[in-house]
Amino acid sequence: MVQAYILIQTEVGKAADVAQTIDKIPGVTQADDVTGPYDVIVKAEAPNMDDLGRLVVARIQVVTGITRTLTCPIVHL
Amino acid sequence: MVQAYILIQTEVGKAADVAQTIDKIPGVTQADDVTGPYDVIVKAEAPNMDDLGRLVVARIQVVTGITRTLTCPIVHL
Amino acid sequence: MVQAYILIQTEVGKAADVAQTIDKIPGVTQADDVTGPYDVIVKAEAPNMDDLGRLVVARIQVVTGITRTLTCPIVHL
Amino acid sequence: MVQAYILIQTEVGKAADVAQTIDKIPGVTQADDVTGPYDVIVKAEAPNMDDLGRLVVARIQVVTGITRTLTCPIVHL
Amino acid sequence: MVQAYILIQTEVGKAADVAQTIDKIPGVTQADDVTGPYDVIVKAEAPNMDDLGRLVVARIQVVTGITRTLTCPIVHL
Amino acid sequence: MVQAYILIQTEVGKAADVAQTIDKIPGVTQADDVTGPYDVIVKAEAPNMDDLGRLVVARIQVVTGITRTLTCPIVHL
Amino acid sequence: MVQAYILIQTEVGKAADVAQTIDKIPGVTQADDVTGPYDVIVKAEAPNMDDLGRLVVARIQVVTGITRTLTCPIVHL
Amino acid sequence: MVQAYILIQTEVGKAADVAQTIDKIPGVTQADDVTGPYDVIVKAEAPNMDDLGRLVVARIQVVTGITRTLTCPIVHL
Repeated sequence: MVQAYILIQTEVGKAADVAQTIDKIPGVTQADDVTGPYDVIVKAEAPNMDDLGRLVVARIQVVTGITRTLTCPIVHL
Repeated sequence: MVQAYILIQTEVGKAADVAQTIDKIPGVTQADDVTGPYDVIVKAEAPNMDDLGRLVVARIQVVTGITRTLTCPIVHL
Repeated sequence: MVQAYILIQTEVGKAADVAQTIDKIPGVTQADDVTGPYDVIVKAEAPNMDDLGRLVVARIQVVTGITRTLTCPIVHL
Repeated sequence: MVQAYILIQTEVGKAADVAQTIDKIPGVTQADDVTGPYDVIVKAEAPNMDDLGRLVVARIQVVTGITRTLTCPIVHL
Repeated sequence: MVQAYILIQTEVGKAADVAQTIDKIPGVTQADDVTGPYDVIVKAEAPNMDDLGRLVVARIQVVTGITRTLTCPIVHL
Repeated sequence: MVQAYILIQTEVGKAADVAQTIDKIPGVTQADDVTGPYDVIVKAEAPNMDDLGRLVVARIQVVTGITRTLTCPIVHL
Repeated sequence: MVQAYILIQTEVGKAADVAQTIDKIPGVTQADDVTGPYDVIVKAEAPNMDDLGRLVVARIQVVTGITRTLTCPIVHL
Repeated sequence: MVQAYILIQTEVGKAADVAQTIDKIPGVTQADDVTGPYDVIVKAEAPNMDDLGRLVVARIQVVTGITRTLTCPIVHL
């Protein structure tokens, strides 16, 4: 299992809608509105790195109002 | 009371209009056009962090011409 | 109660130590090593914004190996 | 007269000291600790652009604990 | 007289047109296409900081294809 | 011969199409989808710096879905 | 097998030494000096994401002269 | 002949010394102190891209007080 934080920038005024929509996507375990350089911070998980990439591209990036996502995979050092 | 600086990027050519419009929003105490990576710098205040977030999203980000806002809450260390 | 994500950059080679040390600080609820522009992502909480600022400066930033922290307060829009 | 916002990054743990020291420098009219990508935001003024540059280099950047300053001159469009 | 470098990002594929158009604007003394985080680098001058701000907003930012400009005033320290 | 890495940001959801399209452009020797601040990383080559610039502007930046490219020429120090 | 590009910033003047040293590390398949916001771009591979993280932290980040690494895992979408 | 702009960040308080020292290096045709995210902007030229890379690493980056350089080669599109 691979986990990651996904730092999301949205169009102005869309942060709340984006967080609510993402929160219902299977594989997403947290979704919070934040202030600062990012608008929404999400925690998600998938069986492996490629599936995580597909979750981000096929399920999260299609949410209306998202302009950039930055995926930060969790590593166990 | 929570105060914050809000660093704003605008569409090209819209900085002056954005600053003038924001300056009239209740809770905004300063609004200046600047050069550099940001186009307008605003100082604002609200009763608490959630209200500040709502002021930014519901009152400031809806101003035509804004592309990104970066909220920097003031802290008393 | 105010919650925030804290995105942390560390000196090269220090990420694992930093995450382990931060994980034991009262108020910190998550601390993960990540790859990408940040090295450790932390979730923390405090009674208000000023206390959160003090938690970051007085408890987290003093951890050896941290070079930058970026606090992103959670807002309920 | 030229005015500017100066966005300051400090060494970890030095933000409060930096803000207090800068607040006493002649020409500085505001100095606040903030969270986010910057640690201290300052407003300052000088007779012209060159004097403002010298104020930043000769009076502000010499304050112990500052690692980067970003000067954003105010313009009246 | 105030001089500045203006670092410009353009829409993809528009850098050459933008540089050629800007090169003919009065007050602009250099305009080069570059690779890297910026697409065009311009050197310009104006009688004072406010006029420089207006040159950027009223003459340069209106050029079709520009998405961001970053003005870096020259200072004589 | 000049070689370069080209770090590409795409519109959300377009990374896979962009990488596949770029991979067929003459002069491109690698094209991979990645996660992080960039979406596609490309390696390309051209006879000289100007030709490399033209390859990026005339062949790569015209690919639908690209929003920013960052060219990093390889140097032999 | 997981592959990644690793974008590296070095201390000034250390890029050539860093690239040469990294090029000999097992798991590293390319290491080039570049100009732009990064100084060295590396391609590396490991059996899984955690091993890749350990390769970066335990083998690459310990190379003298590196100040920041940015790991961009390759994904097959 | 290859030309480039080199955007330089310096240690706090060192911008003026850095600009003066660089201005005397053969191949450098302009060197100005600026405000904003960079501290000094230089224009330089060399017979080809590799020589330009060596000029930056061997002659410019060795100047005391420089922390980062960002080379932006000029391209004729």
